[in-house]
Amino acid sequence: MILRVGIGKRVTVSSAEKRAKSAPRFKADPWCLIEEGFSRETQSVSETLFAQANGYLGTRGTFEDAVERGVSSVEGTFLNGVYLREEIHYDESAYGFATHNNKMILVPDGKAFRLTAEGEELTQGESELEAQARSLDMKTGLLERSSLWRPKAGGTLEVKVRRFVSMARPGLMAIEYSLVSHGFEGGVVLETGLDAGYGGTNRGGDPRAGALSIRDCLEGAQADRTADVQYVGHKVHGSEHLVGAAYCLDGVGGKAATHAVQGAQWREHLSFSLGKGDSVTLIKYVGYCDGPFSDAKDLKARLQADISDARALGFDALLDEHKRVFADFWAAADIQVDAGAEVQQGVRFNLFHLFQSAGKDGNRALSAKGLTGAGYDGHYFWDTEIYAVPFFVFSRPEVALALLEYRISTLDKARERARTMAHKRGALFPWRTIGGEECSSYFPAGTGQYHINAAVAYAAIQYVAVTGDEGFWQSGGAELLFETARIWMDLGHFNARKGGRFCITEVTGPDEYTAMADNNLYTNAMAQHHLREAAALAADLKARTPEVFASVCAEIDLDEEEFTSWSDAAERMYLPYDEERGIYEQCDGFLDKPEWDFENTPAENYPLLLHYHPLVIYRHQVLKQPDVVLAQTLLSDRFSREDKMRNLAYYEPRTTHDSTLSVCIYAVANAEVGDKAKALEFFEETYRMDIDNRHGNTHYGVHMACMAGSWMSMTYGFAGMRFAHGTLSFAPYLPDGWNGYKFMVTVRGRRLGVSVAAEGTRYELLSGENFSFEHCGQAVTLGYGESQTLTA
Amino acid sequence: MILRVGIGKRVTVSSAEKRAKSAPRFKADPWCLIEEGFSRETQSVSETLFAQANGYLGTRGTFEDAVERGVSSVEGTFLNGVYLREEIHYDESAYGFATHNNKMILVPDGKAFRLTAEGEELTQGESELEAQARSLDMKTGLLERSSLWRPKAGGTLEVKVRRFVSMARPGLMAIEYSLVSHGFEGGVVLETGLDAGYGGTNRGGDPRAGALSIRDCLEGAQADRTADVQYVGHKVHGSEHLVGAAYCLDGVGGKAATHAVQGAQWREHLSFSLGKGDSVTLIKYVGYCDGPFSDAKDLKARLQADISDARALGFDALLDEHKRVFADFWAAADIQVDAGAEVQQGVRFNLFHLFQSAGKDGNRALSAKGLTGAGYDGHYFWDTEIYAVPFFVFSRPEVALALLEYRISTLDKARERARTMAHKRGALFPWRTIGGEECSSYFPAGTGQYHINAAVAYAAIQYVAVTGDEGFWQSGGAELLFETARIWMDLGHFNARKGGRFCITEVTGPDEYTAMADNNLYTNAMAQHHLREAAALAADLKARTPEVFASVCAEIDLDEEEFTSWSDAAERMYLPYDEERGIYEQCDGFLDKPEWDFENTPAENYPLLLHYHPLVIYRHQVLKQPDVVLAQTLLSDRFSREDKMRNLAYYEPRTTHDSTLSVCIYAVANAEVGDKAKALEFFEETYRMDIDNRHGNTHYGVHMACMAGSWMSMTYGFAGMRFAHGTLSFAPYLPDGWNGYKFMVTVRGRRLGVSVAAEGTRYELLSGENFSFEHCGQAVTLGYGESQTLTA
Repeated sequence: MILRVGIGKRVTVSSAEKRAKSAPRFKADPWCLIEEGFSRETQSVSETLFAQANGYLGTRGTFEDAVERGVSSVEGTFLNGVYLREEIHYDESAYGFATHNNKMILVPDGKAFRLTAEGEELTQGESELEAQARSLDMKTGLLERSSLWRPKAGGTLEVKVRRFVSMARPGLMAIEYSLVSHGFEGGVVLETGLDAGYGGTNRGGDPRAGALSIRDCLEGAQADRTADVQYVGHKVHGSEHLVGAAYCLDGVGGKAATHAVQGAQWREHLSFSLGKGDSVTLIKYVGYCDGPFSDAKDLKARLQADISDARALGFDALLDEHKRVFADFWAAADIQVDAGAEVQQGVRFNLFHLFQSAGKDGNRALSAKGLTGAGYDGHYFWDTEIYAVPFFVFSRPEVALALLEYRISTLDKARERARTMAHKRGALFPWRTIGGEECSSYFPAGTGQYHINAAVAYAAIQYVAVTGDEGFWQSGGAELLFETARIWMDLGHFNARKGGRFCITEVTGPDEYTAMADNNLYTNAMAQHHLREAAALAADLKARTPEVFASVCAEIDLDEEEFTSWSDAAERMYLPYDEERGIYEQCDGFLDKPEWDFENTPAENYPLLLHYHPLVIYRHQVLKQPDVVLAQTLLSDRFSREDKMRNLAYYEPRTTHDSTLSVCIYAVANAEVGDKAKALEFFEETYRMDIDNRHGNTHYGVHMACMAGSWMSMTYGFAGMRFAHGTLSFAPYLPDGWNGYKFMVTVRGRRLGVSVAAEGTRYELLSGENFSFEHCGQAVTLGYGESQTLTA
Repeated sequence: MILRVGIGKRVTVSSAEKRAKSAPRFKADPWCLIEEGFSRETQSVSETLFAQANGYLGTRGTFEDAVERGVSSVEGTFLNGVYLREEIHYDESAYGFATHNNKMILVPDGKAFRLTAEGEELTQGESELEAQARSLDMKTGLLERSSLWRPKAGGTLEVKVRRFVSMARPGLMAIEYSLVSHGFEGGVVLETGLDAGYGGTNRGGDPRAGALSIRDCLEGAQADRTADVQYVGHKVHGSEHLVGAAYCLDGVGGKAATHAVQGAQWREHLSFSLGKGDSVTLIKYVGYCDGPFSDAKDLKARLQADISDARALGFDALLDEHKRVFADFWAAADIQVDAGAEVQQGVRFNLFHLFQSAGKDGNRALSAKGLTGAGYDGHYFWDTEIYAVPFFVFSRPEVALALLEYRISTLDKARERARTMAHKRGALFPWRTIGGEECSSYFPAGTGQYHINAAVAYAAIQYVAVTGDEGFWQSGGAELLFETARIWMDLGHFNARKGGRFCITEVTGPDEYTAMADNNLYTNAMAQHHLREAAALAADLKARTPEVFASVCAEIDLDEEEFTSWSDAAERMYLPYDEERGIYEQCDGFLDKPEWDFENTPAENYPLLLHYHPLVIYRHQVLKQPDVVLAQTLLSDRFSREDKMRNLAYYEPRTTHDSTLSVCIYAVANAEVGDKAKALEFFEETYRMDIDNRHGNTHYGVHMACMAGSWMSMTYGFAGMRFAHGTLSFAPYLPDGWNGYKFMVTVRGRRLGVSVAAEGTRYELLSGENFSFEHCGQAVTLGYGESQTLTA
C-alpha cells in the first residue's frame, strides 16, 4: 500500500453533519484527555492518543498492565531518528531507485509492570475492575491513572500511576507506581524491568500497525548492572549503531527485589504482603541513549549516570522541571477557543502532540505520525516544512530552527541523491527518509515530487523572515537555500515553444492523484519563490557580508552567472493558465483530462487509491489534496482574491480529501474568500481528526500535518494572518456560533496576543517593544503591554 | 533491472563501421552454424545460439559432456507456456498492481552424458581435445558434433553426437551418441538419464542468466520405470500442474546397464571395454508432457507410450519426419541473399529460431527470447504480434493463427484485468505474461502500455486480410477484436478543449523513454485503426452472417450504439501534430521537453536506462525505439512519403536504439524514404544481432523481435512490400553492394517468389492461380508457374 493516504471520505456537508452528530469518545475537557474503563475496540487508538514524547523519546500510551489476549494493542517505544536500514527489493528495478528503506525502530520498553495478587494477574480486559480512569494532562504532559481492581482473593487493590517523558531530559521517562489496599490482604508480586522482546504478534497486535517486532530491530544484547541501574545495550540490526536503555527502581521501602533475565526481558521481581489499608509506592526511572557502537562504553556510563542523577533528584523535582518546559510552551503557543470545550480540547490536543513529537536538537525532525506510532515507518516528509514548521516559527522558533538544522545536517546525502538523479550540482532532498537518503520505492509519487526542495526552502525563508534570525544563513542556511535552488536550473529549461518561459517537466505536485506531469503550477510557483529568494539572498549577502558570501560560494563552487540565471528563471517562470476559465491549470494538459465520475463512485471506494489503479486515477481530473490552491495559500500575496475564488471554485469540488493534508488548506482558502461555513466545516475535519479517529487509522499514529492544520485554519484562516514583505497582517473574523478565540504569535522576539470576539479583535503586545502590523489593511503599532481593539 | 532493454549503443555510422570490421565468430556458412573447439568466454552465448526447439520443447545448446568448473554455462530445458506462479512483493504497493509473476520453468534435462575412460571424465575446457567441431544445420535443425579426445590412458576416443528436437512430435528429443576408439583401449563408463537438479549455481553458471534453479521449479518427484522407459513426474512448485519427463536408451548392444537414482538425478550407468577400432552407439529418446496433476496417470501412460513408439520407429525415421517439417518451412519462408555468406547465414539463422520457438498449438505463444534462454522469465510481449506475426502471416500462416489463438485462449484473463483497471467492459491484454495475467510490476512501462491491445488487434486484422481466413472471426476472432476495442472507448474521451477530438490520456507508447503521456501518437493511431476495423467488421458480419454476428453480440453483450461510437471515435481521433515542424508530436508536450545532451553522454552510458533514473530520461526528448515512426511504418498507407521523411528526420537522431526492437523499423523507414545507406546500416544491426552478440546479452537468449526485424527490413524495407486494402504491393530496390535477394510470400493460398537483382525484379507465382499485385504502382497478374521481370 502506498502509505500517503488516509481512510477518509469526500467531505460533504451531509457527511460532516452526520459526524458532528456522532458522540465524541472523550469527555470534552479543555485541558485533559480522559478515558474511563477499558475498551477492546479502541485500545490501539487510545495508545496513540495517550502517547508521550519529548522529540527524542516517544512511547505509546499502553497500560502498565497486561492486556487481554486477542485485543489489538500495539506496544511501541521509539527514539526519533534511530532507524533500521533495510534493503528494498524490486521485482523490476531501475537505475536510481531508492536502495534502502529507513524504518523507525522499536527500543526496549520500560513501562510494563506485571502485577499479581495472590497469584492472579491484573489484566486489562479480563480482570474485574470496580472503576478505572486515566487522564493525560496536556498542560503538563503528565499521564495519571487509577484502577480499582477486585482480585479473586477479595477486597480491592488500587493501582495508581503517574508517568511522563521528561521535556527537560531527552532520554528520560519517569513512572510512579503505587498500590493501595482497600480491603485486600495477601501476597503481591510486581515485576518490572526492560522488555526487548515485544512487538510482532505480541498481545495479539494488529499486524498492519507496526510492521516490526523489536527483535527485528535490535541484536546482541549486552547487559550491565551497576549501583541498581540495569543497563542493556543493543546494536541496531545490521548496523554499527548502539541503542542503550537503562532503569532503576526506587522507593520499594526495603522489600526484597530479585533480578532476573528471561529471554529478552530484564526484570525485577518484588514480592511483599499487603494488609488492609497498606500502600506501597515504587518509582522507576527509565533512560535511553543512542550513538556509534564504538562509543558503547562512554554511552553506557553516561546513561547510567543520567539514571542515577534522576533518582537523586527524585520524581517530583523531575516533574517540576518538566512542567516548566510545558508551561513555557503554552505561554507562547496556546490557543483559547470559546466555542465549546470540544473545540478547545481538540485544538490543544493537536498543538500538544506537535510539541511532543518535534525533534529539538537539530539531528532529528518530525515524523508524519510523530512518535505516537510506527505508521509510515516513522518517515519525515515535506509536511514538516509546509505544515508544521509555520506553527513553530510563530510560537517556538527554536524548534523550527532545529527542524531546519536537521535538513542542513543531511545536505551531503541530498547532494548524493542529486548526483544519482543526474544533477551535476546542487542538493535534492528525499521524498521520505529518516537518515537523509531517499526511501521511497514508488518514484512517481516519491522522487517525482521535486517540490520537496521548495518546501525546505520555503520553511527556511519563512523562518528567517519571521524571526529575523539572519545568522541562520551563515550557519548552513545559505548553503541549504543555494544548493536546493540549483536543482531547478538543471531540472527546468527555457522553452522556445512557450515564448522562452522557464518550464519544468516530469514532476509530481502535492496532489498525488496526478503524477509525472509538466509544469505543475505548484512546483513552478514554489520554484519561482525559491529562486527569487535565493537570488535576493545572494545579492544581500554579497552586499552586506561579502566575506560570508565569498566563503559560501567557495564552499559550493558557486558563481555570479548562477545567481543571474536564478533571477532570470524566476522572472520567466511558466505558470500554466487557462484564459477561458480564468484559472491556473494544475499542470499542462490537466484540464484536457476527463472528469472523475463522482456520482457513480460509491462511498466505500474512498480513498480512491485503495480502490483504483494509479493509472485510472492519474488520467482523470481528480485531486487527493489541493495543489493550485495550496500554492495560492502559501504564496498568498502573489494572487488576487478573485483569482483565488475562481481556482478554489474549480478545484475544491474535484478534491477527494483522501489525504489528511487536504482539509486545513481548504479551510484557509475558504476563509479568505469569505465562505465562512465551508471554512468552519473543513476546520472541523482537522481539529478532531485523531481525537475522534475520523480517518479510522489513528492506531498507526496521529496525523501531524493535519494537527498543524488546525493551527493554520485558525491563524491563516479565521484570523486571516499573513506574513509578507516583512509585515504581519490580520483580517480576522469570528466563525458562526463561536464566542471568541485567542492566540499568540511571536515575531522577531515580540509576542502578540490576538483575541477575536464579536465586538472586535483585541491585539496586545505581550513581550518586546514597538511592534507594527496590519489589521484589515490598517497599520497598527503597539508598545509593550499596550493593547488595541479593532473592528473590520 | 527493467528488462526491456538491451546493452546496446547508439547506432552511428562510425560505430557500425567499427563493428563491421570486427571479425565474426562463426565461419560464414550459408546454412550451418559451426563452432570449433571450446571457448570459455563464449560458452553461454553459444548455448543460446545452438538451442533447439519445436515451439513446445526447447533446450539450450549445451554440450553433453561436463563443463569445466567456473565456466559460465547455463543449462536449460523449457516447455513453452509452463511456468511458476510467484507472488510479487512491493515495498509500496497500490491497488491493481500485478500480484504474481509467471516464470518459465526449467524441466529435467536429458542431454547430459557423463563419459569416463579409465576413470578420467571428459570435461569441456579441461580435457585434452585433438579436435572438436559442432554444427547446427538450419536446413534440418540437426545438431552434430565430433570431439577427438585424448584420455590420459592413451589413444584417442571420438565422441560423435547427433541430436534434434522433433518438429513432428511436440515433446520429443532424440540423441544419437557414438564412441569410436582410435587407438584407445580400456574401460569406458557412460552415465546418462534425467537431471532434475541442475541450474542455480551449477557449473558455475552466470547468476544473471536463468534466475531459477530447477529445484525452485519442481517438487515431489514420482518416478516409474516400465519396459526400459524411465518416467519422472514432478509438480510445478506451488501449483497443481504436472511436468512429466521420460527417456529410454537403445542400441547399447547387449552391454549391461544399471539404473540408479542419486538426489534429483535418474541415471543409467553403462560400462564396457573398448578395444582399438571398436565403436559403440547409443540412442536416447527423451520426452516431455505437462498437464493438470489430476491427469497424472494418463499423462504418464501416454508419455511412456510416446517414448516406446519413438524407439520402435528409430532415430533415422524420426529424423526424416522431422526434416520434412523443416523442408516445408524453408520452402515457404527461405530468403536467399547474394551479398556474401555472412548476410545469408545471419538472415537464415534468424528465421530458423523464429520457427523453432513459436508456439504452434494455440495454447502457447512466442517468448521474447524464444525457447533459447530464461531471459525476461520467458514472457510474451507485444513483440510477438507486431514483429513476429507478420513473418508467419506471409510464410506459415498456421503459426500466425496459433499465436492469435493463444491470445483468444487468455481472453477471460484479459477481461479480468480490464475489470481491475476499472473498465466495466472489454478485455485488456497484459503487458508481459505467460499464462495470461499481468506480470509487470513496473506499470509506467507495463500496464501503461495500453497499445498492447492494438498490437493484438493489428495482428488479427493483418492475419485475416493476408490469408483470407474469414472463419477466424467466427472462431473467437471477432470477440477478440471487439472486446479489445471496447477498452479505447473507456480509456479515451471526446475532448471539448480539443474541438471534440477523441483523446487518450496517461498511456505509454512503444518508446519506453517517455511514459504516462497524453495522446501518444502511436497509441492513438493504432487505436484508430483498431476501432475502424472493429466497426467495419461488425458491419460486415452483420450484413453477411447475421446469425454469427448476433451470437457474438449476445456472448459479449454488445449493441449497435457501441459500433457507432467506435466509428465516431476513430473518425475524430486526435493525432497530435506540430504545424511548425510539420511532424507528429510523439505525445502532448513531447516537443516542449528539453533535448537530451547526446554530446556529453559517454558511450558507456548506453543503454540510458541502466545509467539514468527513469525521471531523468522521461523528461527529455530522447527515444529508446521508434514511436511515431513505428506507427507510420505499420500504418504505412495512412501517411505520405514526405510526412514520413520529416518525422524520420526528426525522431531518428533522437533515438538511442537501446531496444533491439528499434533498428529494423528504422531500416524499413529509411528504405521507404530512399536513404539506402542508412537502411542497410540499420539492417546490419538486425541480421547479426545475436549471431555476433552485438548487444552483449545473447547468453540470456536470442532477441526474437529483432530476428523478425531482419525479415521486415528485407521485405517491408528493401522490397518495399506492403499489404493494404486487400492488395499486395512492392517497390523493391537492391541495396548497394548486393547482387540480389530472393524471398517468398504467401497470400491467400498463393505463393509468390520475388527475386530482386540488378536487372530488375522477377516475380513468379509458385503455387495457386491468378494472383494480382502491384509493382511500383503498376498492376501485375500472374498465373500458376508464370513469371515476369520488372524494373522500377
